[in-house]
Amino acid sequence: VAGTRLLLIDCPDETGLIYRISGVLYRHGHNIVSNHEFVDRSVGHFFMRTEFTGLAPAAPVLGELRRRLPAGATVRLAPTGTRCIVVMATLEPHCLGDLLLRHASGELPARIAAVISTHEALAPLARRFEIPFHQVSPAYRTREVHEKEIASVLERYRPDYLVLAKYMRLLTPAFVAEYANRIINIHHSFLPAFAGANPYQQAFARGVKIIGATAHLVTAELDAGPIIAQGVLPVDHSYTAEDMTRAGRDIEKIVLALAKAVRLVLEERVFLHGSRTVILE
Amino acid sequence: VAGTRLLLIDCPDETGLIYRISGVLYRHGHNIVSNHEFVDRSVGHFFMRTEFTGLAPAAPVLGELRRRLPAGATVRLAPTGTRCIVVMATLEPHCLGDLLLRHASGELPARIAAVISTHEALAPLARRFEIPFHQVSPAYRTREVHEKEIASVLERYRPDYLVLAKYMRLLTPAFVAEYANRIINIHHSFLPAFAGANPYQQAFARGVKIIGATAHLVTAELDAGPIIAQGVLPVDHSYTAEDMTRAGRDIEKIVLALAKAVRLVLEERVFLHGSRTVILE
Amino acid sequence: VAGTRLLLIDCPDETGLIYRISGVLYRHGHNIVSNHEFVDRSVGHFFMRTEFTGLAPAAPVLGELRRRLPAGATVRLAPTGTRCIVVMATLEPHCLGDLLLRHASGELPARIAAVISTHEALAPLARRFEIPFHQVSPAYRTREVHEKEIASVLERYRPDYLVLAKYMRLLTPAFVAEYANRIINIHHSFLPAFAGANPYQQAFARGVKIIGATAHLVTAELDAGPIIAQGVLPVDHSYTAEDMTRAGRDIEKIVLALAKAVRLVLEERVFLHGSRTVILE
Amino acid sequence: VAGTRLLLIDCPDETGLIYRISGVLYRHGHNIVSNHEFVDRSVGHFFMRTEFTGLAPAAPVLGELRRRLPAGATVRLAPTGTRCIVVMATLEPHCLGDLLLRHASGELPARIAAVISTHEALAPLARRFEIPFHQVSPAYRTREVHEKEIASVLERYRPDYLVLAKYMRLLTPAFVAEYANRIINIHHSFLPAFAGANPYQQAFARGVKIIGATAHLVTAELDAGPIIAQGVLPVDHSYTAEDMTRAGRDIEKIVLALAKAVRLVLEERVFLHGSRTVILE
Repeated sequence: VAGTRLLLIDCPDETGLIYRISGVLYRHGHNIVSNHEFVDRSVGHFFMRTEFTGLAPAAPVLGELRRRLPAGATVRLAPTGTRCIVVMATLEPHCLGDLLLRHASGELPARIAAVISTHEALAPLARRFEIPFHQVSPAYRTREVHEKEIASVLERYRPDYLVLAKYMRLLTPAFVAEYANRIINIHHSFLPAFAGANPYQQAFARGVKIIGATAHLVTAELDAGPIIAQGVLPVDHSYTAEDMTRAGRDIEKIVLALAKAVRLVLEERVFLHGSRTVILE
Repeated sequence: VAGTRLLLIDCPDETGLIYRISGVLYRHGHNIVSNHEFVDRSVGHFFMRTEFTGLAPAAPVLGELRRRLPAGATVRLAPTGTRCIVVMATLEPHCLGDLLLRHASGELPARIAAVISTHEALAPLARRFEIPFHQVSPAYRTREVHEKEIASVLERYRPDYLVLAKYMRLLTPAFVAEYANRIINIHHSFLPAFAGANPYQQAFARGVKIIGATAHLVTAELDAGPIIAQGVLPVDHSYTAEDMTRAGRDIEKIVLALAKAVRLVLEERVFLHGSRTVILE
Repeated sequence: VAGTRLLLIDCPDETGLIYRISGVLYRHGHNIVSNHEFVDRSVGHFFMRTEFTGLAPAAPVLGELRRRLPAGATVRLAPTGTRCIVVMATLEPHCLGDLLLRHASGELPARIAAVISTHEALAPLARRFEIPFHQVSPAYRTREVHEKEIASVLERYRPDYLVLAKYMRLLTPAFVAEYANRIINIHHSFLPAFAGANPYQQAFARGVKIIGATAHLVTAELDAGPIIAQGVLPVDHSYTAEDMTRAGRDIEKIVLALAKAVRLVLEERVFLHGSRTVILE
Repeated sequence: VAGTRLLLIDCPDETGLIYRISGVLYRHGHNIVSNHEFVDRSVGHFFMRTEFTGLAPAAPVLGELRRRLPAGATVRLAPTGTRCIVVMATLEPHCLGDLLLRHASGELPARIAAVISTHEALAPLARRFEIPFHQVSPAYRTREVHEKEIASVLERYRPDYLVLAKYMRLLTPAFVAEYANRIINIHHSFLPAFAGANPYQQAFARGVKIIGATAHLVTAELDAGPIIAQGVLPVDHSYTAEDMTRAGRDIEKIVLALAKAVRLVLEERVFLHGSRTVILE
């Protein structure tokens, strides 16, 4: 809704939180447009995502909320304005292409500032959509030097988020720490099954009857970050690993892009909670 | 959660509703355990389902809420205690059997008081689970007389809900009115496709690639009541109408019984809103 | 498999058909690489799709098969070489964009020769992918004149198939007859539910809990052609008709394009059988 | 189809296999009613399941097939007559109950001869359906002694298959070898994710957005046997491990019982192929 602001709160659970929070908004002349809350009872933690309207400045609201909420509360307003993302890819065009198409048709609630790839292959695709493309090859250098070169490209764009659209290299913990909780990856399996390399080959060898894709936030440990969205697809014995790869592309695109991971993150619906996510839709 | 009560509100939407409602509960010493609200913006209507704890009597809370909420508000406490249902069936055992199994294992949040069928065929199944079985045959009498005989059986049990578990006869508007919004039916198609008789035969003839089942509240118009839950299943050209019937049984059971329609209704999660439902899970 | 040819047969069912057909191939020195057959027992009809290799010319094989199969048999070899398609669209970019992306990455087993649209809006998208774009406006002329203008554009490309990628106008029976069984349409509902205009608005009004999309061959009767593929998506009370439209886009793309309708048709997997399809995968 | 027999073949792939096999059947006066074949090209292996009718004795057909097929061929006729199964369970009633219901309504293509459980809890359920129930407690004895006692119960029934309907104990390799490829288990996760104990607790901890169930043949290695069928269910952050357990029950039942694993095995549709299955439906 136009003119709305977005309030994001998480704190230890207590009696009367909704009353306190809605009261603060009410007394400052704000109106709650939509409201989602969740209490994780197993650990007694409260999460809330509130869209509100009202002309009064938000700073006093935040101040009063911080005073009235339990110690340890996180209270923040989502930034207004379009978020900026940089997409990182390797060779496969389907996830990048899908993001570029959605971006071009105004479907993505963000601006794609640039594409970075280890190879030249996707340059024509980025150019079709007039998005700057940077090849940063890992050849003849250490992982640290490679990432330093990527970082210097990123420096120009200062993205809010990195989207790994089938970026097939490991990132170092140092690089990940720089973009903590701001790197979204699509993994081409139903995690935690088939973490690591060649998941479709692994899935074929195990003879599974369903394959999947997982969008997750990247942490220092490979394929172990908090899961945002997952999707699946039935397969049968007639699928080779290559058939699974082909069939999996669509579920990868959807899980990553659409109604799903990127949108959920951009709309500030993903709350992190240990190794799990709370998603307030 | 043990000791909780359930408050159900719907009313025209206004500024500050959540603050007002949570304030009333708070001042009476009640604590909100879980809370779901939804605003249908297209018509400006507010729905809320709140579980709360607290020792104070509820009547003053309801009185104060009714005074403070907009005109036209519905404010009610869900009845405590186990709800009572009567299952009506015809010849097919799978939906009835599934309900009886769940009932026997304590999975159903209700008591099945009796089974009514037009035929004798399901009597042994009801007896296996020690549930009273009543055959009320439609033979040699008018629809009105038949329904009067059913009503006189129901009189003994005074059920909160009727569950039509593949009951294959039309009910008159007068009978439906007697149990307004308290009759749950399973229709063996993905409504509104294939309303009326022989939906699997219709689905076969149309050559669809997905079949489904729909649980809905019964209204005077056939297969047109508000939808509670739907499920689907892929099929292909090799399925005859009989194969679809067989395959459809499981989706009928699940849509009807489980995580789905009956549970949603029994847990007071289904709000009616014109010809649509709002389901607060 | 490279070097394979594709034999497509349908005929009244009889004893020994597989033996006869495989014998003819064997005696001519051909090897069956893959074979799918289906017998519709309800009407006694046999369908077969066979990939075979072998250097001998195919004409004698076809001649012998026609002599040995029951009267009424259809026996044909799929044309070799890339098939040519023209995409028709109106304003929405997602289905067209998805087809163009797959085409550009070599994923589509066909060549997109041109895009025809009633509006100018999609011209930039077609140009990004260097595909000829033709606007043929329906303004200020009759439906017949409009279709005559479309036909004269098509004349240049002589496509094997037309793909209606959210083309929002009715086609006359005369136009459809010209491309009998060669027009693939995507309808944005789970047909036969919500045929005609504004299916998402209809779905919202009916309060369904699942929405879908249907790819079908176009016949003279609106939205009644044989169904090739269908897909579904869960929705809930919080979805407006606009939300359903947005969510539906992805299922439309997938059902239309990918693993699905266009590929099935292009790979000659779709056999027509009255108002139903037999799909040999 | 009544009066049909079922021929099951697998062998190294070669040119002309279908012609040879259909020729043998044809010359012996048999008619192929339905036929499914599959070639695993990655290893060059051929699988075929053929239903045929005809009055001639089958032994000469088998003999001739064995002479004409490549070395290493497995050629067998499925036994006619009803197969016999024994169900093993522990405490949870849902899978056992579902099998008993299907059995009672004639939906299961097999006879349930008995139920064996480590506990007494499920005895009333088995008795409702008049199926012999045997408690074989593991208390105060070694695993070997326990299995010897189970074996002595099984000795009475000589089942074709054992169905582990949430049987929560490990079986020794010796026991498994006794029923090689004849033990069907339901595992309550989407294998290979969450093998071993407490899969729903593991799924909760990992924060997955989809849970599943897997029916597989039991081998000596825990949860590593060839997969027959899998099913999934979406979950979200609001599901506790207990909620997942409850929601998972239905998918377990369906994957195990219905259209799925037990039926596939009983209808001789499951071909084993290393650690994978080929399923000819």
